[in-house]
Amino acid sequence: MKILALNCGSSSLKYQLYNWDKKTVIAKGVVERVTIGDSFIVHEVPGRENYRKKYDCPTHETAIHLIVKTLTHATHGVVTDMSQISAVGHRVVHGGEKFTCSVLINDKVIEGIKEVQHLAPLHNPANISGIEAAQVILPNAPHVAIFDTAFHQSMPEKAYLYPVPYEWYEKHGVRRYGFHGTSHLYVSKRAAVLLGKPQKDCNLITMHIGNGVSHCAIQSGISVDTTMGLTPLEGAVMGTRCGDIDPAIPAFIMEQEGHSAKSIDSILNKKSGLLGITGKYTDRRDVIDWAEAGDERCQLALEIESYRLKKQVGAYLAALGRVDAIVFTAGVGENASLIRQKALEGLESLGIELDIEKNKKTFTKSGETLISTAQSKIKVFVIPTDEELVFTEDVVGILEGTYSDHLTFPYTFSSNDTESEEVVQSQRLTA
Amino acid sequence: MKILALNCGSSSLKYQLYNWDKKTVIAKGVVERVTIGDSFIVHEVPGRENYRKKYDCPTHETAIHLIVKTLTHATHGVVTDMSQISAVGHRVVHGGEKFTCSVLINDKVIEGIKEVQHLAPLHNPANISGIEAAQVILPNAPHVAIFDTAFHQSMPEKAYLYPVPYEWYEKHGVRRYGFHGTSHLYVSKRAAVLLGKPQKDCNLITMHIGNGVSHCAIQSGISVDTTMGLTPLEGAVMGTRCGDIDPAIPAFIMEQEGHSAKSIDSILNKKSGLLGITGKYTDRRDVIDWAEAGDERCQLALEIESYRLKKQVGAYLAALGRVDAIVFTAGVGENASLIRQKALEGLESLGIELDIEKNKKTFTKSGETLISTAQSKIKVFVIPTDEELVFTEDVVGILEGTYSDHLTFPYTFSSNDTESEEVVQSQRLTA
Repeated sequence: MKILALNCGSSSLKYQLYNWDKKTVIAKGVVERVTIGDSFIVHEVPGRENYRKKYDCPTHETAIHLIVKTLTHATHGVVTDMSQISAVGHRVVHGGEKFTCSVLINDKVIEGIKEVQHLAPLHNPANISGIEAAQVILPNAPHVAIFDTAFHQSMPEKAYLYPVPYEWYEKHGVRRYGFHGTSHLYVSKRAAVLLGKPQKDCNLITMHIGNGVSHCAIQSGISVDTTMGLTPLEGAVMGTRCGDIDPAIPAFIMEQEGHSAKSIDSILNKKSGLLGITGKYTDRRDVIDWAEAGDERCQLALEIESYRLKKQVGAYLAALGRVDAIVFTAGVGENASLIRQKALEGLESLGIELDIEKNKKTFTKSGETLISTAQSKIKVFVIPTDEELVFTEDVVGILEGTYSDHLTFPYTFSSNDTESEEVVQSQRLTA
Repeated sequence: MKILALNCGSSSLKYQLYNWDKKTVIAKGVVERVTIGDSFIVHEVPGRENYRKKYDCPTHETAIHLIVKTLTHATHGVVTDMSQISAVGHRVVHGGEKFTCSVLINDKVIEGIKEVQHLAPLHNPANISGIEAAQVILPNAPHVAIFDTAFHQSMPEKAYLYPVPYEWYEKHGVRRYGFHGTSHLYVSKRAAVLLGKPQKDCNLITMHIGNGVSHCAIQSGISVDTTMGLTPLEGAVMGTRCGDIDPAIPAFIMEQEGHSAKSIDSILNKKSGLLGITGKYTDRRDVIDWAEAGDERCQLALEIESYRLKKQVGAYLAALGRVDAIVFTAGVGENASLIRQKALEGLESLGIELDIEKNKKTFTKSGETLISTAQSKIKVFVIPTDEELVFTEDVVGILEGTYSDHLTFPYTFSSNDTESEEVVQSQRLTA
C-alpha cells in the first residue's frame, strides 16, 4: 500500500510517498515558490541523486500536476501510474474547534474547512486547493485531512481562552488553537517509549524549534497548553515571526509609521523574530556563526531566543507541577546544541541538568538521544520529528477502520522500540 | 518638613501630605473624574471623618487648586498656608530611557518628559499638567519627578528588547520599560529585611496585583525583568487590560469588526481582562463572590488569572535560577488569599509550599506576613506596598543631597525593622 502525504503551504507544496508494507519512504520532495513565480521542484528518491527542475506553477493545481508528472516520470519517477497510490493524506493548518482528529474528506469536511478559513486566510484556502486538485487526479483514492490544530483540542479553557471580550470567542472563534500538532504528538509518544512509561503517566514539555517554533505542555499524555495561539504568530521567537510582544505594539507602530493593519501583520510575521533583531538572518546557523564571529546583533538574537525558551520551560514546569522529560525537536531543536544549552543553563535547582558534552555531539543524525546527566531529575531528549509518518498512519488507520482519534490510536511508533531504547541506554551509560 | 506627593493620572489625581519629622501621614485623598465631568474629592485625615465634596474639575490645574483649597480649608484642612509644604514629589508614568532615577524638576526635565510622551500619550501629558500647575501654586518649593519606569532600567537587553524590527527600537523607542517601579522597589527592599539578608544577595519574584498587574524578577536586588512592556498592557490578566495575547489578534479583530487601531487599543485596555471574560466585573472581590455563587464566567476568569500567575512564577524561577522569596503586594495581592493559593498550588516540586490556613487569614491589615510553611524552600510573603513613602523619601533625599539613585539610597524601610521581623518570626513559629 502506497500512501501520498501532501503538505500544501501558501507558496510551497511538500510531498512524501510512503510504502506502508515495507515501512519505507519511496520518494519525497517540495515544489517551491508556488503562485509567486520562478517555481521549481526538488525531488528526492533514496539511493538516487536529487532531481531539481524549474517549472511554472501559477496555482496549487499546477504544482500538484508537477508532482504527479515527477512521481510517474520515466527516468525520475517511482510509480508507473498514479493508480498505484492507495490514499492521500492532506495536512490542513487550521481545523478550528470543528476538527479534533483526522478525518476522511467528503463535501461536508471541505465545507467545514472553509467555515474556519477566516482563522487562517493564507493557509486554509491553499490546503483546499491542494485537496480539490488531488481529488481530480486521484478520484478513486480516499483523501484524509490531518489538522495541525487537532492535537491541542484537549486543552482546558483556562489555557485556551484569552482575557479579551468573551464575544470575540463566540462570534469570531478568538481562542488559542496551537499548531505543529502532529510533531508534538509524534515526539511525545516517542518520549513515553524512551521513558519506558505508558503515555498516560507522562508529563512532558515538547519544544518544536524550527523556522516556526512552538512548545507544548503535555499532561498525562495529552496537550494541555501550547505557545502558538489563534495564529502561529504567538509564543517563542521564530525565524521571521515576533512571538510574544506587548499587544499594544501593533497599534503603536500603525500610529507612528502610518501602517495599515495588513501591513503590520505582514511585518510581525515576515520581518520580525531573528530577522528583525539581526536585520539579516533567519537561519539559526547564520545567527550562531555570526554571533561567534562577533556580530553583536546576532549575539543579542541568540540571547533573546534562548532566554525566552528558558522562561517558557519554567512556565510549563509550573503549569505541569511534575515533569518527566523535556524534548527538543525540529531543525533547530535537533541540531542547535548551543541554543539547547543556553535555554537550559542555570536550571539545576529546578531538576534539569544537561550533559554538556553529549549535548554538543547530538544532531538529527544521532537519532533519539538522552542529553541530560544520569542524575538529572528531569530527563532531556533530542527526538527527530516525523510528521509525515503521523499523516501516513492516520490515513492507514482511517482506511482500515482502526482510527477513531489520536488519543487512542495505536501508532506503530508509540509501542516499544528496542533499538531506540538501546541507543538511549548506551548513551546514558557513556554519560 | 512636610512633603506633598502628587500622582496625576489621566482622570484622577491622588495626593498625600507627609510629616517627615514625625514620619506620619498628615492627610491623603483623591480627586476623581478629572476632565470627564462629575468630579469630586475624597479627603482623609487620620482621626477625622472622611470629607467628600463634588467640585467641577475640567482640567488637572483645577483639580490641584481643589486639593490646595482642601488642604488649607478652615474646617477640613491640615495646614494654614501652602508655604508650610517644603517640597512636592510628582509621580511620572513614563521616563523612557532618559530617566533612570528620580530627579529634581527643571525646564530640561520637563522637556525630557515631553520627549518620551509618545510612549505614554494618556499619562505623561497629565503628569506634566500636574507638575506645571503645582509649580505655579508652590513656586518656591522644589519639585521632584519619580518615574514608574526607573526601577526597571537595570534590565539587560535580552529582557527588554522585543523580537521586532530593530529600527523600531532605534526610531520609536519600542522596548520593554515596565511600570509599578516604586512598588516593586519598596516590597523588594522590605523582603530583604524580612529575609535578614543584604539586598544584593536576594533573588525575588515580586507580584504587584491590583487593578493593574505586573511582576518583577529581581536578581541581586535589582530588576532584571518585568511583565509590563512598552505600555502597561502586556503581561498578566488585569481588571480591564488583556495582558499577553497573540499579537495577531488586534489586526484580526480590526479586520473582522472594522475597528480602527485606536478603538482596538481602547478595547484591549478598557474592555478586556477580567471585564472581558466575565462581561461584568473588574473587581476581584466581585469575581470571587460570583464564582463562589456559581457564575461560570467568573469561575473561568479566576482560573485564567491564577493559571497565568502560576506560569509567570515558573518563568521567573527559570530566569533567576535561585529564588529566595515570592512577594505578593497591592490591593489584590495583599487581600485575595484565594488567588494567591490558586497561583501557587501544585508548585511543591519547585520548592514552594504555601501555609494554606495562614494564607487565608492574611490581609493588608495583617502587615508583613510570611505565608509559606516552615519547610518551604522558597519563602512567600505578603507585603503591603507603600509607593507614597518611596516618593517622599526620594524627595527628601534629593533635597538633602543624599540621593543619587534608588540602587544606593539608604531608604529608611530598607534597614532592619525589629517590629516587622518579630511579626514574621512569630507567624513562622505558629506555622
